[in-house]
Amino acid sequence: MLALEKALRTTAQDVEDVLDKILRVEEGHEARLFESMRYATLGGGKRFRPFLVVQSAALFSVSRTSALRVAAAIELVHCYSLVHDDLPAMDDDDLRRGQPTVHKQFDEATAILAGDALLTMAFEVLADRRTHENGNVRAELVAALASAAGAHGMVGGQMLDLEAEKIELDIGGITRLQRLKTGALIAFSCEAGAILGRASSDAREALRGYAHDLGLTFQIADDLLDVEGTIEETGKAVGKDAVAGKATFVSILGVERARAQAKLLANQAAEHLAAFDESADPLRAAANFVVERRN
Amino acid sequence: MLALEKALRTTAQDVEDVLDKILRVEEGHEARLFESMRYATLGGGKRFRPFLVVQSAALFSVSRTSALRVAAAIELVHCYSLVHDDLPAMDDDDLRRGQPTVHKQFDEATAILAGDALLTMAFEVLADRRTHENGNVRAELVAALASAAGAHGMVGGQMLDLEAEKIELDIGGITRLQRLKTGALIAFSCEAGAILGRASSDAREALRGYAHDLGLTFQIADDLLDVEGTIEETGKAVGKDAVAGKATFVSILGVERARAQAKLLANQAAEHLAAFDESADPLRAAANFVVERRN
Repeated sequence: MLALEKALRTTAQDVEDVLDKILRVEEGHEARLFESMRYATLGGGKRFRPFLVVQSAALFSVSRTSALRVAAAIELVHCYSLVHDDLPAMDDDDLRRGQPTVHKQFDEATAILAGDALLTMAFEVLADRRTHENGNVRAELVAALASAAGAHGMVGGQMLDLEAEKIELDIGGITRLQRLKTGALIAFSCEAGAILGRASSDAREALRGYAHDLGLTFQIADDLLDVEGTIEETGKAVGKDAVAGKATFVSILGVERARAQAKLLANQAAEHLAAFDESADPLRAAANFVVERRN
Repeated sequence: MLALEKALRTTAQDVEDVLDKILRVEEGHEARLFESMRYATLGGGKRFRPFLVVQSAALFSVSRTSALRVAAAIELVHCYSLVHDDLPAMDDDDLRRGQPTVHKQFDEATAILAGDALLTMAFEVLADRRTHENGNVRAELVAALASAAGAHGMVGGQMLDLEAEKIELDIGGITRLQRLKTGALIAFSCEAGAILGRASSDAREALRGYAHDLGLTFQIADDLLDVEGTIEETGKAVGKDAVAGKATFVSILGVERARAQAKLLANQAAEHLAAFDESADPLRAAANFVVERRN
């Protein structure tokens, strides 16, 4: 576990450096926009998705520079989604990573624009020649990220999540919600390494299976944290799902069965990687890490 | 002028068909998202940017399918920007194209998500093989659109526009605001044809000059409409800039000088196209059309 935490920290630092360079504050009266983009993105988060990109890219000997730029792009998308999700019209959250959310620190208009700009920048980063020398690879990255992040992925999942307050979702509905809202971007994080490394379809299939189970594990762990975590551990409000009367994996399965299910899925995720050598050990370890995390 | 209006109408219909196919309503509890995306995009607008794409692409014998897909992508970005700009935290507009704005027709959360999904979809459309067979071309389109639409373009201009209520902009400041807020996307609309057609750098330079002057003409005409237009003609609230005490080309130059300046710029725009044959006539005519438009 120590090796995994070290690898997570190293990736977090490296992707932070890349993001810091990308998110320069420009002169002019619109400087506030750049400041809010940095505030939303830098100095926080586990950088779990970047870790998945870097580790999946390492399986195919992709250059670390390429992997880190794609990792940064995914983190830009992840951070934009948090900024918009936190807005008063959406989840109305005041705290994120223990700090005021962007619309609290700046204002709502700035938060909307910061999210828009972060999302746009993610595609600019992917399409840039410095990310990969091959145009087909760059275009494939853009297409796959857009598919994962858009109406058929993350944004669709967020819409479904809002609707879920009005409808009663069963375990199948919740699984679908999760697959869209968080699973798709986690899946792209793993797939990105395979795209960059022009991996075989067998290798891609294995990573897709891994990412699918990992994504579910991640969401169940998140639901458990919302019930069992403290605001100090998570840096955000807890217990919100229960207050909102929203069905979650935990509300349907109960804490014990949800935890058992997460462990089962984590093992299952690792098993998808059977064909890879020890270079896949960090990904195998990550699945268990997700179950054990406290924030 | 009749030929131009016919060309505008034909492009508007063709791009409407492409958008209609792209924006399918998917089954599921998140169907509301797809409905709001269609509401925001279909059945309205002059489709002026699509016209510029189609006409600039025609200069380089680009297939109409390619041009229309890029035109649709730009229109998705334009429509997303309107949805977010209309939000209560931004311009707080109730009317758009004579209809309730998206957050009025649906709700704020849906409007935020619809905008996010439309923006994301634009990049998905550009990166798709059906848009162009060459990956480098697709990646270049993505990079150029992201640059035009993001923090260094349209979103930066929107931030500057919000700040402009607090600061006093001079004519240079307003020109810069316009170049970011509307000019960058208009410039990309013209540049897109050159990217698709892998045009020479001379041809690109000419189109860039045309687009620059056209964008300014467009904005001055917009400011004139805000002063002289009626809600029936424009389908949106008018006189808002004056109420907000915002400096515009008209407030600084006055109506007469602003109109003269727009005409001058329109002629100047057309002159950039001197090296092209009569295939550039619609673009030449468009510059004058912009000055004369009443909505």
